[in-house]
Amino acid sequence: MRTFNNMAGKRGAAHRVDKGGAAVDPYRVMFVVGALMLVLTVLMVPPMLADLVVANPDWQVFAGSALLTGFIGAMMVLISRDAWSERVRLKEGFVITVASWLAVSLFAAVPYMFMAKPLSFINAWFEAVSGLTTTGATVLTGLDGLPEGLLLWRSLTQWIGGLGIVVMALIMLPFLKVGGMQLFQTESSDRSDKILPHARQFIAYLAFVYVLLTALCALAYRLAGMRMFDAVNHAMTTLSSGGFSTHDASFAYFTSPLLHWLAVAFMISGALPLVIYVRMIRERKLSFFGSEQVRGFFLLLLASVMVIALWLVWQKGMAPHRALLLAAFNVTSVITTTGYASADYSGWGMFSAMAFFVFMFFGGCTGSTAGGMKIFRIQVMMMSIGAYVKRLMMPHRVVSMAYENRTVTQDIAMAVFAYVSVLFMTVGLFGMLVAMTGVDLVTALSAVVTSVTNVGPGLGEMIGPAGTFAAMPDAAKMLLSFVMLLGRLEFFTVLVVLQPSFWR
Amino acid sequence: MRTFNNMAGKRGAAHRVDKGGAAVDPYRVMFVVGALMLVLTVLMVPPMLADLVVANPDWQVFAGSALLTGFIGAMMVLISRDAWSERVRLKEGFVITVASWLAVSLFAAVPYMFMAKPLSFINAWFEAVSGLTTTGATVLTGLDGLPEGLLLWRSLTQWIGGLGIVVMALIMLPFLKVGGMQLFQTESSDRSDKILPHARQFIAYLAFVYVLLTALCALAYRLAGMRMFDAVNHAMTTLSSGGFSTHDASFAYFTSPLLHWLAVAFMISGALPLVIYVRMIRERKLSFFGSEQVRGFFLLLLASVMVIALWLVWQKGMAPHRALLLAAFNVTSVITTTGYASADYSGWGMFSAMAFFVFMFFGGCTGSTAGGMKIFRIQVMMMSIGAYVKRLMMPHRVVSMAYENRTVTQDIAMAVFAYVSVLFMTVGLFGMLVAMTGVDLVTALSAVVTSVTNVGPGLGEMIGPAGTFAAMPDAAKMLLSFVMLLGRLEFFTVLVVLQPSFWR
Repeated sequence: MRTFNNMAGKRGAAHRVDKGGAAVDPYRVMFVVGALMLVLTVLMVPPMLADLVVANPDWQVFAGSALLTGFIGAMMVLISRDAWSERVRLKEGFVITVASWLAVSLFAAVPYMFMAKPLSFINAWFEAVSGLTTTGATVLTGLDGLPEGLLLWRSLTQWIGGLGIVVMALIMLPFLKVGGMQLFQTESSDRSDKILPHARQFIAYLAFVYVLLTALCALAYRLAGMRMFDAVNHAMTTLSSGGFSTHDASFAYFTSPLLHWLAVAFMISGALPLVIYVRMIRERKLSFFGSEQVRGFFLLLLASVMVIALWLVWQKGMAPHRALLLAAFNVTSVITTTGYASADYSGWGMFSAMAFFVFMFFGGCTGSTAGGMKIFRIQVMMMSIGAYVKRLMMPHRVVSMAYENRTVTQDIAMAVFAYVSVLFMTVGLFGMLVAMTGVDLVTALSAVVTSVTNVGPGLGEMIGPAGTFAAMPDAAKMLLSFVMLLGRLEFFTVLVVLQPSFWR
Repeated sequence: MRTFNNMAGKRGAAHRVDKGGAAVDPYRVMFVVGALMLVLTVLMVPPMLADLVVANPDWQVFAGSALLTGFIGAMMVLISRDAWSERVRLKEGFVITVASWLAVSLFAAVPYMFMAKPLSFINAWFEAVSGLTTTGATVLTGLDGLPEGLLLWRSLTQWIGGLGIVVMALIMLPFLKVGGMQLFQTESSDRSDKILPHARQFIAYLAFVYVLLTALCALAYRLAGMRMFDAVNHAMTTLSSGGFSTHDASFAYFTSPLLHWLAVAFMISGALPLVIYVRMIRERKLSFFGSEQVRGFFLLLLASVMVIALWLVWQKGMAPHRALLLAAFNVTSVITTTGYASADYSGWGMFSAMAFFVFMFFGGCTGSTAGGMKIFRIQVMMMSIGAYVKRLMMPHRVVSMAYENRTVTQDIAMAVFAYVSVLFMTVGLFGMLVAMTGVDLVTALSAVVTSVTNVGPGLGEMIGPAGTFAAMPDAAKMLLSFVMLLGRLEFFTVLVVLQPSFWR
């Protein structure tokens, strides 16, 4: 909690972190939400400029949205600035996290509601949530004909969402100890002080690396043949593992294999912990494989790609190099929870469809922009099950577990198991609710899974890699928007705030 | 471990229970397996007699099978009788459990391979495993035209399987501490000595209650209008929560609502812990609701039935009393993991299909013949997640958990979570393998779920309540037979034996 302790708040006598659960100060929540709305306001400027450049009247939509969001954000910050202290209380941490995502997603939806062919509130909120959570499911069709400003806005929501997720995963979630995230307490969420002294500086480093990687990706895409506008947009949605494209055909629009391989490389970059780049820069040496999480991620990814590539060669008679490219691109896209498609993989046979369904759950590394269960949870879960089986055989043996040089306590294992159980319960419960709107079983199940893991496309004709969520019933879209947020906030952040006892 | 400790073995100086993992004595395993094969031999006599009575030449099949099984069983017992000691070692417990189910299912398959229209080995083993595990999935069509002996054999495998499951759940699994079953350590698996002194006497009580309930059920069915043969067969497959029928139409063959309501009542009886009947008889008072497990079961069942009944009234415009009967019968059938169908519920719309898919996971009470996750695991899981959420809010608060007047330790909660995680991993892994055989996603997923939870019918046209597993590819049937055993043995019994380190 160093971050939140060692910087003086505006109030003369700043509060200590009160883990006992003192009341939530609504002004502090308002301050953070307001500040994030100001960030959102700044992001509305590039789309406005893009529309002005191409003389599209939609620039007014962004100007208006920016004025609205900026005004409300500024008011909130001004009203609450005296209450702010960087010594955040535990309960405030939960409320700030949930309120920020809710408020930002609502205001990010405003441009969609006032564009030339306006979306309904439900569609606009779905698109905004899908963007900010870097899910990448879309209700828009005819992307190729949409004004530049709006396409840029979609990409920007994913890009800023990705950074927000990394910051949340590195600073907020370990502090809240949600879903076993205390395994990743760093110098910024912990009391130890190893590499970087302050959260602000830490965030600045992360943002720098994120901008750098995005710029590199855009440059690579441009040099490999994309238009500049496409290169910038796809770079933003690649690094954020978001998956929005500027074309209805998604990445299949681009025919160059080089572009596809570049996308594979940068999707992987986006699914690695951002902090390892910071460390590599500071220590001036390349070392990707120092962490169990990263090794596990590469092993899982490699195995999954090979299985699908072999299946394509064996069952579909594809040439090996083509099978490898298709498998590498689409499997990486799903496992990193990006959600681009370079082919309609739902047509690759039942095994492949089922495999992609399972891949949706995996996700990338913690501290990256990726969603899903995350590699560390899979590893901690397997480790705990292994230890349990050992204890069954030899009840008196003490089995201790370590991960990334930390002891995996029973508390952490329980937190991981609780996460996994709630994930499957969410799939069951919301699967039933979405099926109630009349869509078929595969669509309902895969829609919920792809939303909760923030992947993007589902399975089946409607929402598969070749489809969109446009034709989903409104009720289903509302449910799925909530599920995307629930997954992104790792369930417990939301569940805690929904407890009546939280507010007493 | 009283049971296994306090009875003198045949060897003069019987071994103490050695939890440290001394080597497995293969002769002890052989003794138990041989003894169970003798039980199986005895069970082959009634079908033989039935065929003799109706002058069906199939009686020779059962005579031959009985000779074979009896001879091998007797040899095994004779060879190994000196090695037997009721002080079973922990590791032997695992091997005995797995070996018994494997051997008995192989010999139970013999009659199917030599009947008038013989089944292939894969089909025969599938039918035998489906019977003994009380799953109730079938590869046979044209049941109405099958000889009486064979129909009786199918019912008998489920009936004896049901008793085997109860004995295993009350004595073996708590001893092995598999999947949190130590919560149910009783006087027979524990050192305490409350109601019944010995395992043998305990098993005799259970068998008595089981026979009594089956007789009551048969009598009720007969009085309500079933033919005697149907009444006996259906009584055996109702109490065992098995679900084999003597008619292709399953319970829909019977049109009397009274019969359906009776089936509901007796399916519920079979899904309650058998030990509560023993207690009621000993204490001479009716008390169903004394246990949290039973209360939880009734609540879950009631809620599920009501939801489906309301759905049928609201969406299908059914008359309320008809909706209630159909919902009560089919939901009870799935939640108790019996698997009868009185209607093709896969035609009740997507919500209903998805709901039945979720219901498949639930299962009945531990210590009953039902399969599935079991109510106590759902309750312990929810309790643990609740405690975890409380600790997130108030990290310094100590949250203790109790269930059925016992403390739920972290070890037990971990065991339950490990069970749940392995269940979902099994569904994912075997779902992919089954999909590899070419069946569609809904069929593959529901086939694995209905097998692992020992329910019976799946979803989709082929294996839905109106279909059979006959048309499933052979490879899929082999996989599913293994999955049925895996689920019935609660995963870890099998996983432990599959560890290379177990055998060192």
